[in-house]
Amino acid sequence: MANMSVDDAMRRAITLAARGLGTTSPNPVVGCVLLDRDGALVGEGFHAYAGGPHAEIVALAQAGERARGGTAVVTLEPCDHTGRTGPCTAALIRAGVARVVLAVNDPDPVATGGIETLRAAGIDVRTGVRAAEAEAGNIAWLTAVRRDLPYVIWKYAATLDGRLAAADGTSMWITSEAARTDVHALRGTVDAVLAGVGTVLADDPRLTVRNLRDGSLAIRQPLRVVVDSSGRTPAGARVRDAAAPTWVATAAEVGAGPDGRVDLTALLSALYRRGVRAALLEGGPTLAGAFFAAGLVDKVVGYLAPKLLGAGPAALVDAGPRTIAEVIDLEYVDVRRVGPDLRITALPRKREG
Amino acid sequence: MANMSVDDAMRRAITLAARGLGTTSPNPVVGCVLLDRDGALVGEGFHAYAGGPHAEIVALAQAGERARGGTAVVTLEPCDHTGRTGPCTAALIRAGVARVVLAVNDPDPVATGGIETLRAAGIDVRTGVRAAEAEAGNIAWLTAVRRDLPYVIWKYAATLDGRLAAADGTSMWITSEAARTDVHALRGTVDAVLAGVGTVLADDPRLTVRNLRDGSLAIRQPLRVVVDSSGRTPAGARVRDAAAPTWVATAAEVGAGPDGRVDLTALLSALYRRGVRAALLEGGPTLAGAFFAAGLVDKVVGYLAPKLLGAGPAALVDAGPRTIAEVIDLEYVDVRRVGPDLRITALPRKREG
Ligand SMILES: NC(=O)c1ccc[n+]([C@@H]2O[C@H](COP(=O)([O-])OP(=O)(O)OC[C@H]3O[C@@H](n4cnc5c(N)ncnc54)[C@H](OP(=O)(O)O)[C@@H]3O)[C@@H](O)[C@H]2O)c1
Ligand SMILES: NC(=O)c1ccc[n+]([C@@H]2O[C@H](COP(=O)([O-])OP(=O)(O)OC[C@H]3O[C@@H](n4cnc5c(N)ncnc54)[C@H](OP(=O)(O)O)[C@@H]3O)[C@@H](O)[C@H]2O)c1
Repeated sequence: MANMSVDDAMRRAITLAARGLGTTSPNPVVGCVLLDRDGALVGEGFHAYAGGPHAEIVALAQAGERARGGTAVVTLEPCDHTGRTGPCTAALIRAGVARVVLAVNDPDPVATGGIETLRAAGIDVRTGVRAAEAEAGNIAWLTAVRRDLPYVIWKYAATLDGRLAAADGTSMWITSEAARTDVHALRGTVDAVLAGVGTVLADDPRLTVRNLRDGSLAIRQPLRVVVDSSGRTPAGARVRDAAAPTWVATAAEVGAGPDGRVDLTALLSALYRRGVRAALLEGGPTLAGAFFAAGLVDKVVGYLAPKLLGAGPAALVDAGPRTIAEVIDLEYVDVRRVGPDLRITALPRKREG
Repeated sequence: MANMSVDDAMRRAITLAARGLGTTSPNPVVGCVLLDRDGALVGEGFHAYAGGPHAEIVALAQAGERARGGTAVVTLEPCDHTGRTGPCTAALIRAGVARVVLAVNDPDPVATGGIETLRAAGIDVRTGVRAAEAEAGNIAWLTAVRRDLPYVIWKYAATLDGRLAAADGTSMWITSEAARTDVHALRGTVDAVLAGVGTVLADDPRLTVRNLRDGSLAIRQPLRVVVDSSGRTPAGARVRDAAAPTWVATAAEVGAGPDGRVDLTALLSALYRRGVRAALLEGGPTLAGAFFAAGLVDKVVGYLAPKLLGAGPAALVDAGPRTIAEVIDLEYVDVRRVGPDLRITALPRKREG
């Protein structure tokens, strides 16, 4: 096995970490690569699901005695506390690694302290290697943990002229099967899917993660959340079926804003306490507008079909801006074709001051 | 000079032809490459402006005696009539070329006949080489000439959610300077720029081709056309200044449709007779909708700013579809970043039947 630089090992660890996306919540994704004292790769692992072994433990098990005197390359600061598994710091010390290289420090006040513990045991700790890349790979979890509110992704599907449906309300299908399959994959990476009661009443969606060809359900299903101030979700709504857990979040339970509707910050706070770190806001335009007006959207994923309608409901309403100076500024981070459609990913720009 | 295959020569001729885009109207763009009897490149040229020498003439002048026994590779069938310049067929015969290779036959009933004339003079004529590529390079002109109506490009600039302006009407600037510069370049490739009187009344635009930094005007300006049924364009409107020719097209002059507004097919027909082959429809949403409803749009160029408004006028209104089955289907042909914005180019899909 050829020797690997620490930098290449971190790149590999970041790639490994990404395999856990969507299944580790409320934990972060983490990847680990172990190099022996000569720099040969002797173990690797990633955190695959909450309750399962941490990345370091998987890699150490693979390396066995070859870890002694070697280097552990980890995307996130190793945990120092005993949760569902023992602390990774103790395992690294026990294995006798000489050096730990990490990308991002752990912002979780419960898990932090790993660096000090390792150093106290005489291990050489280096931080910040490929930090930006590792941070990007864990952005939802890091953002959520830093502020105790889930990371919110707004997804919408519209025509090129920004219409969600035709003037008569028909919309099957604006986007292609390829785009809809992509949405199911996106749902598979989050812990909760949110929709307004307006969408539930209009479309009776399932909001599950499933195979569009045969209808089979994915093993892990995000929590379905209907934002429904006065509890208008029908008893027979599909979203209430047994396919996935569902929460009809009412103003009575969550708390109401000045307009009497569900207080969205309180809603997100409650979801965070339930373990939700990433949430997909799937509509409709009214609920999405309220999330923007409250400054609660972290990412935008738009599917734009190569179609024009010139009439019909708009993708977004009442989002806040009344004049051009108040426009919501984004930055495109990814644009790609998904079947005949375009998928546009954008991030809100932080306002100065 | 290394020898060139006829295929490579045609590729070169197509590239040369494109240099004439925007200045040859009412003529097509044409490129020509001359190879001597051994296949060495001995001359090349393109048609640069109406009234100027044709591509073949430029290339023949460069090649001189070396053209004898050689091959002329031309993107379009050489003209056979005496217009502002003599027929190219006569020049090719006089120069003694042995072979003519062309991509696209000339659909213009006045100019056609070149192939027969060349063959009658004993020249070997091959057609259809890189035809699709050459056709694409001349698509506006070919489309226009085949149906006696200009090729219409609808351009719009909107937020990601399809708004042209904020709720209070402010819109300076939704798109970036880079995108606005790109629009001026696009205007430079057409013969006419069209706007509805609504846009003229709301924004008082100049509709000229100019350098956005210093305001200097391009030498060649497309005709400015205001579509204005009852002649409401103010005497002092900027579009009436001396910077470029302007036509305020009223229903009285052009003819009216059943709704009493300017008949758009009659308008395009009148523009064709004035020599317009490519027209840029710059707005606003009402006029664009009417063009779509009449099936008169050939290409869509949308500039999408990474911004959200959630309120304000839509990019397109009253375009025809009332239900999803009537949606206007497009196909994306190009998507690229222009500064912070996205430029999306799409073509209408032809409906079956
Ligand atoms: N193409 C797509 O991507 C897509 C996705 C989803 C939906 N849609 C379309 O969107 C349409 C439904 O959209 P919609 O705008 O009518 O409904 P919506 O956004 O799904 O739901 C809006 C409702 O959410 C409730 N709500 C609770 N708390 C709120 C708060 N703080 N702020 C705002 N709303 C709150 C309100 O009802 P209460 O006051 O009763 O609680 C409100 O009327 C449907 O036609 C559907 O087809 C399209
Ligand atoms: N962001 C952009 O790309 C962009 C570009 C242009 C404009 N805009 C915005 O668009 C807004 C103006 O749009 P608008 O929709 O009010 O006006 P418009 O589309 O510019 O003009 C519409 C007017 O054109 C006239 N017209 C003549 N014949 C017509 C026909 N056959 N069909 C339809 N209309 C015909 C009609 O007035 P008469 O009946 O009196 O003739 C009609 O009211 C402004 O706010 C401007 O800022 C934005």
